[in-house]
Amino acid sequence: MGSKSDLPVVEETAKLLSQFEIRHEIRVISAHRTPELARRYALEAEERGLEVIIAAASGAAHLAGVIASLTPLPVIGIPLEGRTMGGVDSLYSTVQMPAGVPVATVAIGQAGARNAAILAAQILGIKFPELRNKVKAYKAEMAERIEKETYLFNKSG
Amino acid sequence: MGSKSDLPVVEETAKLLSQFEIRHEIRVISAHRTPELARRYALEAEERGLEVIIAAASGAAHLAGVIASLTPLPVIGIPLEGRTMGGVDSLYSTVQMPAGVPVATVAIGQAGARNAAILAAQILGIKFPELRNKVKAYKAEMAERIEKETYLFNKSG
Amino acid sequence: MGSKSDLPVVEETAKLLSQFEIRHEIRVISAHRTPELARRYALEAEERGLEVIIAAASGAAHLAGVIASLTPLPVIGIPLEGRTMGGVDSLYSTVQMPAGVPVATVAIGQAGARNAAILAAQILGIKFPELRNKVKAYKAEMAERIEKETYLFNKSG
Amino acid sequence: MGSKSDLPVVEETAKLLSQFEIRHEIRVISAHRTPELARRYALEAEERGLEVIIAAASGAAHLAGVIASLTPLPVIGIPLEGRTMGGVDSLYSTVQMPAGVPVATVAIGQAGARNAAILAAQILGIKFPELRNKVKAYKAEMAERIEKETYLFNKSG
Amino acid sequence: MGSKSDLPVVEETAKLLSQFEIRHEIRVISAHRTPELARRYALEAEERGLEVIIAAASGAAHLAGVIASLTPLPVIGIPLEGRTMGGVDSLYSTVQMPAGVPVATVAIGQAGARNAAILAAQILGIKFPELRNKVKAYKAEMAERIEKETYLFNKSG
Amino acid sequence: MGSKSDLPVVEETAKLLSQFEIRHEIRVISAHRTPELARRYALEAEERGLEVIIAAASGAAHLAGVIASLTPLPVIGIPLEGRTMGGVDSLYSTVQMPAGVPVATVAIGQAGARNAAILAAQILGIKFPELRNKVKAYKAEMAERIEKETYLFNKSG
Amino acid sequence: MGSKSDLPVVEETAKLLSQFEIRHEIRVISAHRTPELARRYALEAEERGLEVIIAAASGAAHLAGVIASLTPLPVIGIPLEGRTMGGVDSLYSTVQMPAGVPVATVAIGQAGARNAAILAAQILGIKFPELRNKVKAYKAEMAERIEKETYLFNKSG
Amino acid sequence: MGSKSDLPVVEETAKLLSQFEIRHEIRVISAHRTPELARRYALEAEERGLEVIIAAASGAAHLAGVIASLTPLPVIGIPLEGRTMGGVDSLYSTVQMPAGVPVATVAIGQAGARNAAILAAQILGIKFPELRNKVKAYKAEMAERIEKETYLFNKSG
Repeated sequence: MGSKSDLPVVEETAKLLSQFEIRHEIRVISAHRTPELARRYALEAEERGLEVIIAAASGAAHLAGVIASLTPLPVIGIPLEGRTMGGVDSLYSTVQMPAGVPVATVAIGQAGARNAAILAAQILGIKFPELRNKVKAYKAEMAERIEKETYLFNKSG
Repeated sequence: MGSKSDLPVVEETAKLLSQFEIRHEIRVISAHRTPELARRYALEAEERGLEVIIAAASGAAHLAGVIASLTPLPVIGIPLEGRTMGGVDSLYSTVQMPAGVPVATVAIGQAGARNAAILAAQILGIKFPELRNKVKAYKAEMAERIEKETYLFNKSG
Repeated sequence: MGSKSDLPVVEETAKLLSQFEIRHEIRVISAHRTPELARRYALEAEERGLEVIIAAASGAAHLAGVIASLTPLPVIGIPLEGRTMGGVDSLYSTVQMPAGVPVATVAIGQAGARNAAILAAQILGIKFPELRNKVKAYKAEMAERIEKETYLFNKSG
Repeated sequence: MGSKSDLPVVEETAKLLSQFEIRHEIRVISAHRTPELARRYALEAEERGLEVIIAAASGAAHLAGVIASLTPLPVIGIPLEGRTMGGVDSLYSTVQMPAGVPVATVAIGQAGARNAAILAAQILGIKFPELRNKVKAYKAEMAERIEKETYLFNKSG
Repeated sequence: MGSKSDLPVVEETAKLLSQFEIRHEIRVISAHRTPELARRYALEAEERGLEVIIAAASGAAHLAGVIASLTPLPVIGIPLEGRTMGGVDSLYSTVQMPAGVPVATVAIGQAGARNAAILAAQILGIKFPELRNKVKAYKAEMAERIEKETYLFNKSG
Repeated sequence: MGSKSDLPVVEETAKLLSQFEIRHEIRVISAHRTPELARRYALEAEERGLEVIIAAASGAAHLAGVIASLTPLPVIGIPLEGRTMGGVDSLYSTVQMPAGVPVATVAIGQAGARNAAILAAQILGIKFPELRNKVKAYKAEMAERIEKETYLFNKSG
Repeated sequence: MGSKSDLPVVEETAKLLSQFEIRHEIRVISAHRTPELARRYALEAEERGLEVIIAAASGAAHLAGVIASLTPLPVIGIPLEGRTMGGVDSLYSTVQMPAGVPVATVAIGQAGARNAAILAAQILGIKFPELRNKVKAYKAEMAERIEKETYLFNKSG
Repeated sequence: MGSKSDLPVVEETAKLLSQFEIRHEIRVISAHRTPELARRYALEAEERGLEVIIAAASGAAHLAGVIASLTPLPVIGIPLEGRTMGGVDSLYSTVQMPAGVPVATVAIGQAGARNAAILAAQILGIKFPELRNKVKAYKAEMAERIEKETYLFNKSG
C-alpha cells in the first residue's frame, strides 16, 4: 500500500488472505516517495518466491504500475479513494496501463480490497488445487448465506 | 467476446496468446442475449480444463461478471468502447464488482486486449515456469526495442 | 435487491406498491453472489404469474440485466449509490444494455425507488384500468399538494 | 422525437415495432420549441387510445419528462447523442426524474432505440399474450443466431 | 423552485434581490409534478409584468427549460445539487438547451443562487439605470472588502 | 471570442443578431493572450454604450469571467468545444463562477452560439418592446415549422 | 488565494515554504471579485522581485490563469475543492490553459497545496543550489520515514 | 515521451524550445516498458546538468511521476490523449500526485505541449534573465498578433 493510512482498507485483503491460509506480507511502499524501495521490492519479488503482488494506492495511483513494470509476476491493483473524486483518479491511473504491462484492477476501495484477496486465491488456485477448493467453498457459503436472507423478505402488498 | 463485431480487438489478445503458445479458444457469448450459453460456458469451464477466462464486452458490460459469478477460475475483463462514452460505461460495469466476485480488469480497448493476454501468461506463469520465462523475454525485448528507439531522438536546440 | 443493505431504499418502492395495492414480494438476490438463484427467479417469474420485475443494485449493477436476459417480462432497474461515484457506475451498468435486452431504468437512489413503483403501476395500468385511475389520483394529489405550498411563498422585495 | 434529424435513430424503433406488429405513429415534437404541441399530445394520448409513449431527444432532453408529467401512460425515454458529450447530458436529463414522475430510460442512441421497441412490446405483453410470445420468439431467435456464430470461432493457439 | 426543500438555497437569491430593492415573488412550481401550474405561470408571466424569471431545480432539472419554452422573457436557471452527482445532472439538464430556447445558467447551488440575483439586476440594469448603479456599488464594495482582507496576510518566511 | 478559429461557431450568433436587427460587433480577444485588451474592452464597454456582452471561448474558458469581473453589464458565456473533452472543461470554467460575478452560460458549441443571440434579444427585449415581439415571432415561427414537420410522419405499424 | 476561506489549505503551502526558508507572502486576491488587484499584483510581481507565484482557487478557478496572463514569472496553480464536484471544475479551469500561457498545475486540495511549495523550491533550486539540497534532504527524509514504517507491517497469514 | 507515436505532439514542445534557444534532448522512455531506462535517466539528470525535465505520456500516464520521484529537478507533465477518454485518464494520472512529489502539469495534448516549453522558459528565466526577456517578447508578440486580428472583425448588425 502507498501509505500507512491505507491500512484499514488493506486489512480487508489481509483478513481474507488469512482466511484462505495464503501466506502474505504487508508493506508500506510509495511509488513516488520511496521509488527505490518500490523498485527493489519488485525486482526481488520473484526470487523471494512471491507469486502474486497486490498494490493499493490512491490519487495518481502508480504503485501497481511501477511494480508491474519490474516483475514478471501478476500484479493486482486496488484503486483507493482519496480526499476528492471518489477514487476515479486512482481507478484510471491503475487500469489504463499501456500495452505490455497489465495491472489486474479490481473495484475502488473496500470491495476491491476484498476482491483482490479472492482474485489472488483464484490465480494461485491454478497451481494449488486446495486453494481452488477453498474459493469454491467460499462462494458456495456466500451464496447460501444470501439465499437464506432472501426468504426473510417475502411479503405481499 | 459479447459480439462478433468485437473480433478486431479480441484478435489482439489471440495473437499474443499464440505468440506465448498458450492454447485458447474464441467464443461469441453474450451475457444478455445468450445467457444460457454464458452460464453453461462458465459452469463447464473448470471441468473442461480451462485455467483462465478472458471476457471482452462493451456498454453495460456484464459478460466478465456473469462468468466470474459461476466459476472459481480467474476471469479477466476487457472493457470495450461502444458507440458512446469512450468505454467508460463498460469500464465501470466490468471493474466495480461487489465483494466476493472479482474481475481482473485491464485497460479499455486495444491496449487492454493485448494486456489480457500478457496477464493470462503471468497468471499461468505461476504454474508453468516456461511461461514466466516467455513473459520475461517478451518484456526484455519490448524494453530493448524502445531503448533503441530512444537514441534516434537526440538533438539539441 | 442485490444486498440486504439496500432495504432502506427498496422499502420506498414497497411502500408505494402497497399504497397502489399492487401485490409484490421482496427478495435479496445477487446477480454475482447468487447467480443460480437469480437465474431460477428470472426463469420462473412468468410461470409464477409475476408481471413486472424491479431490480435494485449498486456498483457494477448487473442484477436488472441478468434478470432481463432470462424473462420476457418488463424489468425495471433502480441504480443504487455505492460507497463511491454517487451511483454513476450503477447507472451506466443498468441503462447501457445492448440492443435486444432492455432495462427500464429510473433515477439513482431514493427518487428512483419511488418511481419504480409508479412506473410499475403505469405499466400494469395498461391491463388494469383501476390501477391507471390510481396513478391519476396519485399525480393529481401530488400536484394539488405542491400547488398549495406554492401560495405560502408570495412575498415581494 | 425532438427533431427531424433524430429520424435515423428513431427508425430503428419503428422497424422493430412493425416487426412486432405493434401499431404506432411517429411525431416530431420538441419539448422546448413546440411546448404546446407536446402538452396537447401528452394530454390527449390516453383518450386517443395510446398505451405507451416513446420519447427520443438529445442535449437537455426534456421531451420524455414533459410528456410523463402530463399522462398516466408509461413513458419510455431514449437519450440521443448530441454533438458533444456523447449523450451523457441527455442520459442525465432523461433518467434523473424526481420522485413522482418516472421515465423508463433505455441506453443512449441506437441500442436504446431498438430496446425502446422491445420494452414497449414487453409492457404491452402483460395485456396481450401474443405479444409476449413474440418477445419470447425474438429473444430465442437472437440467442440462436449468436450461438451459431460462436462456433465459427474455435481455434487453438 | 422545484420543491419546498430548495428554499434555503433560493433564499440567498431572495435576500440579494431585496438588497437590490427588486420586487420579486417566490413560488414552488415543479415542471414534472405541477406541469399545468408551470405552464400557466410561464404563459401569464409577461402579462403580469414580470421581467425576468429565475428557476431553480435539481436532478433532471427541467423547470427553467419548460418555462423558457413558454415565455419571451429571459429565464435564469440555477442547477441545484440533488442527493447524488453533486449537481452535474441538473447542470447538464439546465444548460444544454437546444437552439431556439436559451436558459441563462449560473453556477451549481449557493453561488449560483446569489449570482442569479446579480444577473437579474444586471439584466434589469439595461432598462433601469439606478439598478446598474446598485450593481456597480455592490461590486465596488465587494472588491473593497476583499482588498482589506488581503492586507491581513502579509508575512514572510 | 477567444480565438479567430472560433469564428465559424460565433457566426451563428452574429447571423441571429442580424436577423433580430441588433447592432453588434465581433472581436477576437483572448483573456489569456491579450489580457490588457480584454480589460480595456470590458472597462470601456458601458461607456461605449454596449448593453450585453457575449463571450465565447474553449478550454480553461476565462474570457466571459474576466469580462464579467470588470463590467456591470450582463455577460453571456458560450463554452466552446476544444480538441479534447467535448467542451466539458469550458462549460465548467464558464458556469462555475463565484458568488458576486455571474456569467449567463448557454449550451456548449453551436446550439449555445445561437441561443446566446436569442438570450441577448430577450434581455434587450425588457427595454425594447419591438425586440420582445421579434423574439415572440421567432419562437412562433420555429414552433410552426416543427409542427408542420410532425405531420409528415404519421404511419402505423 | 481567491478567498479567505481557502486559508487552511494554503497554510500547508506556507508551512513548507517556511520549512525550506523561502521568503513568501500570502494574499487574498480574487480574479473575479478584485480583478484590478489581481492585475496590479501580477504586473508588479516581477519588479517587486518575486520569482514564483502560487495561486489557489476553487470553482471556475481563473486566478492562476489571470495572473499568468500578465507576468513572465512561472505561475503554479492549486485547484481547490468547492462545495460541489470535488474540485474537478477548478482542475479543468486551472490546467486547460490555451497555448501561450501555461499554469503549472498541481493536485486538487491539500496534496496540491504542499506540492506547490515543493515545486517552487525545485524551480528556485535551479538558481539557488542550497534550495536544491534542501529538496533532496526533504525527499530523502520522507523516503526514510516511510521505509521505517514499512517494517512495522511484516506478518504472514 | 512514453512512445515514439507521441512525437508529433512533442515536436511542438521542441520547436518552441528551439525558438527560445534552450538546449534540449528528446528521448522515448516508457515508465512501464523501460522502467530501468526511466530510472537511470531520472537519477543521472541532475549530474548531467539538466535543469528541467518535460515528460509526455497518455493513459495511466506515470512517466512524469516516476521521473519526479527520482530527481530534485522540476518535472513538467504533458497529459496526452490516448484512443479513449480524451486524455482525462492521463490528466488525472499526471496531476493527482501525492504530497511530496509534485508534477507541474499543463493542458492535455497540443496546447500543453507548447505550454510545457514556455513554462520551462519561465522557470529557467529565474536564473537566466535573457530567457525571461524572450518570454516577455514572445507574449508581447502573441498579444500584438491577436490584437491585429481583432480589428478584422468589426461589423455591425
